[in-house]
Amino acid sequence: MTLSPPVVGILGGMGPAATVDFYRKLVAATPAATDQEHLPVVIWSDPRVPDRTAALVGDGEDPTPVLRAGVAGLAAAGVRLLAVACNTAHAFVPPLAAAAGLELISIIDVTAQRLAATLPAGATVGLLATEGTVASRLYHDACAAVGLTVLVPEPAEQARVTAAIAAVKAGTADATGAAALAEVLGTLRDAGAEAAIAGCTEIVLALAAGTDADPVLPVVDPADLLAHEVVRRARELRPDPADAAS
Amino acid sequence: MTLSPPVVGILGGMGPAATVDFYRKLVAATPAATDQEHLPVVIWSDPRVPDRTAALVGDGEDPTPVLRAGVAGLAAAGVRLLAVACNTAHAFVPPLAAAAGLELISIIDVTAQRLAATLPAGATVGLLATEGTVASRLYHDACAAVGLTVLVPEPAEQARVTAAIAAVKAGTADATGAAALAEVLGTLRDAGAEAAIAGCTEIVLALAAGTDADPVLPVVDPADLLAHEVVRRARELRPDPADAAS
Repeated sequence: MTLSPPVVGILGGMGPAATVDFYRKLVAATPAATDQEHLPVVIWSDPRVPDRTAALVGDGEDPTPVLRAGVAGLAAAGVRLLAVACNTAHAFVPPLAAAAGLELISIIDVTAQRLAATLPAGATVGLLATEGTVASRLYHDACAAVGLTVLVPEPAEQARVTAAIAAVKAGTADATGAAALAEVLGTLRDAGAEAAIAGCTEIVLALAAGTDADPVLPVVDPADLLAHEVVRRARELRPDPADAAS
Repeated sequence: MTLSPPVVGILGGMGPAATVDFYRKLVAATPAATDQEHLPVVIWSDPRVPDRTAALVGDGEDPTPVLRAGVAGLAAAGVRLLAVACNTAHAFVPPLAAAAGLELISIIDVTAQRLAATLPAGATVGLLATEGTVASRLYHDACAAVGLTVLVPEPAEQARVTAAIAAVKAGTADATGAAALAEVLGTLRDAGAEAAIAGCTEIVLALAAGTDADPVLPVVDPADLLAHEVVRRARELRPDPADAAS
């Protein structure tokens, strides 16, 4: 018997808490009654990746070399699918995945497609994300391609989003940060947004630190959508989850 | 600049939920204010590992080949430390780690040493674990080496422990399973145990599904102890967490 390598590779570490959360969502998205029915996965979680936003909006160090090392490590492990548990990193990863021969399941594209399938044509969607993701226009472009318009917070409000993300990365997320995000969501709703994208893997964790059970706007979680799409695609590639023969 | 490989390897997938929980504990155990201060980690989570208990107490398939493939995959990724997020797997892993040149940080030894440091000499410790871990006598031997006696549940009570573990693996953990574990802990306490080992990575998750805030016996969580020891040892090996040069 030759054991086939794990089919799913997760590039994480941006940040580590969001990687924990993404793998938790992947496990929860997998229909399985025993260990053996879950997906074999390799997670490359190297938090030394330089800040993606600093590279996109300023003169920060290029994260490409560390991202390339992670993609190469996953490819060497034999995975075929690549999921990246960081929205902002999608500004850098597509050519690295292609060069390594991995099929990237884009968190951006999966989210835009889901929004297009559930919102009225031409709807406006708010975006809570890092300044890097906002500046990269990743969600703007993917949503425009499916007929949706993206609305981003004004600079003062964006600063509150950035602070809430930083608090999760520092392990200090609290109800204050969640309340700030709720106010930003309210402003986006008042400006015409019909839903919002939690477009940074830390945003959902920041919102969860609050006590408000009723969000002012429907919030879609790209990490959760990505988890379900990874399960669907992995099962297409290897229909029998217990298949151990290559 | 040559990027050094991640120093920590985690062999998981036994089960996936426990792997999520272990990585969460590792992140929580790391003093860090930014992503870049966290430990670079590779997680090999292949749930195709045949049931460890079935191999230890019956005629189940030998898990060694799949475990060896995971250890080899982590070694090929360049890690130096190996943490295994499954107690029962420690009946198989030590020679595989040695053959691959990896330093195994044993969840069993870390736990026995902590118990010896916190309990009176000669104390009795209860064990909630799989039938495989019980039969392997991993904890019996490690605790005997530090002067502690391990007490295990009677067969009917062990069956309730086994059922609670299976419920976590199936994603159906609930308050009933947690209450059953609380009763087993009560029996162990009445028989003289001064503390108990949550000696299967799923036990803490099973207990957390309950509503009881006050355990009948102090329960030590080997996964949490292992997480802290991995952080300590990784920082010894690579004192500057941002060190990216090999």
